Amino acid sequence: MPCETFNLKEYLKKRRALIERALETYLPASNGIYATILKAMRYSLFAGGKRLRPILCLAAAEAVGGQKETALPVACALEMIHTYSLIHDDLPAMDDDDLRRGKPTNHKVFGEAIAILAGDGLLTEAFSLLSHSDSEQLGVNIKVPAERRLRVIHLIAQAAGYQGMVGGQVLDLECTGRDVDLETLSTLHQHKTGALIRAAVKSGAILGGGTEEQIEALDQYALQIGLAFQIKDDILDIEGSVEEMGKAPGGDIAQRKSTYPRLLGLEKAKEKLRECIKKAKEKLAPFGDKALPLKAIAEYIEKRRK
Amino acid sequence: MPCETFNLKEYLKKRRALIERALETYLPASNGIYATILKAMRYSLFAGGKRLRPILCLAAAEAVGGQKETALPVACALEMIHTYSLIHDDLPAMDDDDLRRGKPTNHKVFGEAIAILAGDGLLTEAFSLLSHSDSEQLGVNIKVPAERRLRVIHLIAQAAGYQGMVGGQVLDLECTGRDVDLETLSTLHQHKTGALIRAAVKSGAILGGGTEEQIEALDQYALQIGLAFQIKDDILDIEGSVEEMGKAPGGDIAQRKSTYPRLLGLEKAKEKLRECIKKAKEKLAPFGDKALPLKAIAEYIEKRRK
Repeated sequence: MPCETFNLKEYLKKRRALIERALETYLPASNGIYATILKAMRYSLFAGGKRLRPILCLAAAEAVGGQKETALPVACALEMIHTYSLIHDDLPAMDDDDLRRGKPTNHKVFGEAIAILAGDGLLTEAFSLLSHSDSEQLGVNIKVPAERRLRVIHLIAQAAGYQGMVGGQVLDLECTGRDVDLETLSTLHQHKTGALIRAAVKSGAILGGGTEEQIEALDQYALQIGLAFQIKDDILDIEGSVEEMGKAPGGDIAQRKSTYPRLLGLEKAKEKLRECIKKAKEKLAPFGDKALPLKAIAEYIEKRRK
Repeated sequence: MPCETFNLKEYLKKRRALIERALETYLPASNGIYATILKAMRYSLFAGGKRLRPILCLAAAEAVGGQKETALPVACALEMIHTYSLIHDDLPAMDDDDLRRGKPTNHKVFGEAIAILAGDGLLTEAFSLLSHSDSEQLGVNIKVPAERRLRVIHLIAQAAGYQGMVGGQVLDLECTGRDVDLETLSTLHQHKTGALIRAAVKSGAILGGGTEEQIEALDQYALQIGLAFQIKDDILDIEGSVEEMGKAPGGDIAQRKSTYPRLLGLEKAKEKLRECIKKAKEKLAPFGDKALPLKAIAEYIEKRRK
């Protein structure tokens, strides 16, 4: 089956629905004493994210021949961690954003104190979910060996912590308002967004029972698409249209942010993007048709218009 | 050996030194790209805390006949979580404190953005440490079964999250400036400080290989000393001296905070304190001399003058 016949749109829609349902099960609303904090946590968790990280996690589990259900709680934990990072990044002390995906940011709705705590709560809940042992309560009928689960928790913690996302946000703060070179820009993105994307793919591969060789190949795939995603973002800021993106392009230029097109030139940046996608797809070759979704996602990252 | 001959002061001093050394190993300083965030994380982690939670964790492991080394990484992770909660609680959006243990708070030194991230980093690093599998790298020669480690991670995440510490801080914000009843006050403290103290003792008992009966008994011990600790805090705010406490008493009254003496009357509060300590010590009876440190800590909580 060539990739063209794979219906990515339909696939993403179904996977998103699966993840929404699971998140709803793992973090249900409540009228009890936790009503306030749950409301704030759920506000951002269900604010219409693309669910890219959990989708990649499930797809990686299947690429190595595992069942997606094995990875479902971990996939949802990754989305909680991603959401926590957005809440904290939007805070007045950080990027001071009023809007996220067209909706008021968490602190705009609940105030700064609750927003900080909602982020803390989501981050902690992710680890609660990652270490949850009752597979029946999780609606998942597949047991994963405890050693494998510990490995996944550790790699996700490392990807989210000061050597990963948290470190990336610190680098971003340190780089704001000054010119940086290509190496620094790449280090920043690899920490801020790349690390969790890699952790999503890698943890899926581990949970699906992949060999070390398979895990390594998918990790390299994730490294390339993470980088590609950022380059494409930078290109869209130059070439995108308001209609398609839902926001005005040119923000990076106005803020004098260091971007790949600015450092490489637009054509070279596009070339690098194509190269990343090519490398990513090459890593999928040994997986055959099982990796069709991962292949289609890589192609989507190159072609997307928003 | 009666409790009087147990030298608590010497014991606490040695244990603190052990924990400081381990924390230094697990989160060393660095001049690399993580220099800034590590500096901020370490500033609060090494700001002279009493290390009560890690000490309780090690003591619980030994009370059930285990070796303290088994619990050392978990003990340090608990201290990281405790420290993160202090950094975030002190933020301008929360309690807005300028001083902590006589030193400027994290955000006063590093700014709000880095303080938020230092808290995030410590919380995440705790889970990285909890799931770390290389016992040699951790300087601990004892392997704990993976299933047992997952159980400990889960209970600590629950104690730290929205059903524990995070939830307690939300309740505290909601209760500020209004009168609350005894039940609400107790719920608040059980979440804000009690949950992590219980998790510290319980995880120690699990890691030390305790039976379910022993784990339950020590959990009940922890519940009582957690409550006692808070009542004593409230009493010291009335009876303590500036010289001994290093801060002026009467702060609760000035802020019209709900406290046990205010709701119960001073004498009744003292009675309740004695009762908690009595109940806590009763739970230790089956452990004999192995629980001497836990017994001495309970007595210290009752008698302490700061």
